[in-house]
Amino acid sequence: MPKHDKPFLGEFELIQKYFSRHQENQSPSLILGVGDDCALLAPPSEGSVLAITSDMLVENRHFFGNVDPESLGHKALAVNLSDLAAMGAKPMGFNLSLALPNSIATNSTWLEKFSRGIYELADEHQCLLMGGDTTAGPLTINITAIGEVPPDQALCRNQAKPNDDIWISHEVGDARWALGHLRGEWRINADDLTLARKRLEKPTPRIQLGLALRNLAHAAIDISDGLLGDLKHILKASQCNASVWIDQVPVSTQLKQQSTELRRLCSLQGGDDYELCFTAPQENRSAIETLSTALGIKLTRIGLVDFVELSSGQTSTIKLFDDTNQLIENSLANQYLKSFDHFR
Amino acid sequence: MPKHDKPFLGEFELIQKYFSRHQENQSPSLILGVGDDCALLAPPSEGSVLAITSDMLVENRHFFGNVDPESLGHKALAVNLSDLAAMGAKPMGFNLSLALPNSIATNSTWLEKFSRGIYELADEHQCLLMGGDTTAGPLTINITAIGEVPPDQALCRNQAKPNDDIWISHEVGDARWALGHLRGEWRINADDLTLARKRLEKPTPRIQLGLALRNLAHAAIDISDGLLGDLKHILKASQCNASVWIDQVPVSTQLKQQSTELRRLCSLQGGDDYELCFTAPQENRSAIETLSTALGIKLTRIGLVDFVELSSGQTSTIKLFDDTNQLIENSLANQYLKSFDHFR
Repeated sequence: MPKHDKPFLGEFELIQKYFSRHQENQSPSLILGVGDDCALLAPPSEGSVLAITSDMLVENRHFFGNVDPESLGHKALAVNLSDLAAMGAKPMGFNLSLALPNSIATNSTWLEKFSRGIYELADEHQCLLMGGDTTAGPLTINITAIGEVPPDQALCRNQAKPNDDIWISHEVGDARWALGHLRGEWRINADDLTLARKRLEKPTPRIQLGLALRNLAHAAIDISDGLLGDLKHILKASQCNASVWIDQVPVSTQLKQQSTELRRLCSLQGGDDYELCFTAPQENRSAIETLSTALGIKLTRIGLVDFVELSSGQTSTIKLFDDTNQLIENSLANQYLKSFDHFR
Repeated sequence: MPKHDKPFLGEFELIQKYFSRHQENQSPSLILGVGDDCALLAPPSEGSVLAITSDMLVENRHFFGNVDPESLGHKALAVNLSDLAAMGAKPMGFNLSLALPNSIATNSTWLEKFSRGIYELADEHQCLLMGGDTTAGPLTINITAIGEVPPDQALCRNQAKPNDDIWISHEVGDARWALGHLRGEWRINADDLTLARKRLEKPTPRIQLGLALRNLAHAAIDISDGLLGDLKHILKASQCNASVWIDQVPVSTQLKQQSTELRRLCSLQGGDDYELCFTAPQENRSAIETLSTALGIKLTRIGLVDFVELSSGQTSTIKLFDDTNQLIENSLANQYLKSFDHFR
């Protein structure tokens, strides 16, 4: 009998089997885990406050129905850990809410893989599954993650300063490149697709980088809706403008071999990369380069926060320059500046 | 032009308009609210730990599509506050994740009412909207609420003791009674339906009661899946049995006038009442009665935790007695003991 035809589990048995673990495997900071009205978690370290974030993933919006469940579990937690990273917060724990269609609630293979994907990433960052909710419904995953950060070291979006360098971690664009293939917008060869798809489906939350940037960066954001659109959130909150050298934005070896147009679209406007974009004072350049070597994460300067501060009400603008230092003309720039919006 | 035909809002404008408020209206404990990668919240009071709970509501599972949006907003938060109450925790804040179909994302009347329902209840309990997520998708609401409680005073399910009284707050059954009418299982006259439906759609989280019970009760649970089924969670966690006098379970004047069978079904097996069921030492009876008067909430003793403790692995049983002190025979008792399961 195939596994997904196994006898049906009820709601409480399903939670017990896939989404709770014995206390002895967990940290002493989790005073009470899955299975009561609330979880009980020890407060953050002395001097730190709570950093709290939620992300909801909906089938056919954020992932395709045939996605590998282990990757889906990984990604559901990764996008939340990425938000903690972008605040410079250290993960403490998370709650998982699941709406499951009956076809999945009865599919033990799916549930095992999904929970393995979550637990592997959670364990890597000592982030504890505290509790949550499971119900029947269209496949929807919500995670709320909690971390801790000293409030004066939090990498808030409104902390960018004029003359700050703008940095980006690792590479961006592969997630959008893979998505385009899956949507039929273009074709990628099998080897390149394997690499690019991994970036789309199993993004790496930059937790260690976020922690290390507490003392080096002013503001940070994680790239979920597109590099330039996300950078605009920092500029708007900080009431600044910026200049970005768009051909210096780091992309994978494979994406670099594509047309300029495709490379720019994927790296500037594509989301889902979950790299960190941050601003930092120019005097921290060498410290940030040292950090890059220490963590083994490429960190690239792609622009500058402009000197002129905006008055409240004015819109932040980003001037885009190409590799010959020419200003990109407006209509093309506006196209690159569009970011993803769930209701547009 | 009717309001729901208003120009379309994007994701960020929608959050800005309906789900964020100016900081000056908020408590100083919310260091950073809606609009960054994470919210930042001050830690709990000295000596307290965090109590964390999540509930996900799905259209046509937890509510009908035509439900009043203000009631829906109220209920989405109420069911979470009710979990904090059942732990004896004081609310601090909550994150709201919403998947909205386009018909709702473009309906400003719906969004205004929904957010009003949430904010009114949140303000009543000084529980701050910290952040969340908004996406397109089938109507789904997830709230994760955070509270604080001294760990040795938390009303955990595993703390019931032999000879404890079993208590229930206010009345139960009206929510199930109203649901049956809406589902076409039976008919309720218009006046009674108005009252019963309010109990289904705008439940009252018993926050003040939960706080007051910290020093009086051993274990507590809120009634979401049915009184007897939920009581069984306490007994299982505490490895105890219980006896319950089912005709002493308090119901509304209207439900009392219905058949014994209907009254018992609604009050014992029906969920969604969000009253607190708790166990407390018999020496606290008069203190609990005084508390009942002070809070203006009826508190009724309906049973006893049995003296015999169970060894691990044994199943907890509840003996049911009628108003003549006769044991209810097994097949009928088993029917009453069934609770709601989303996958059954």
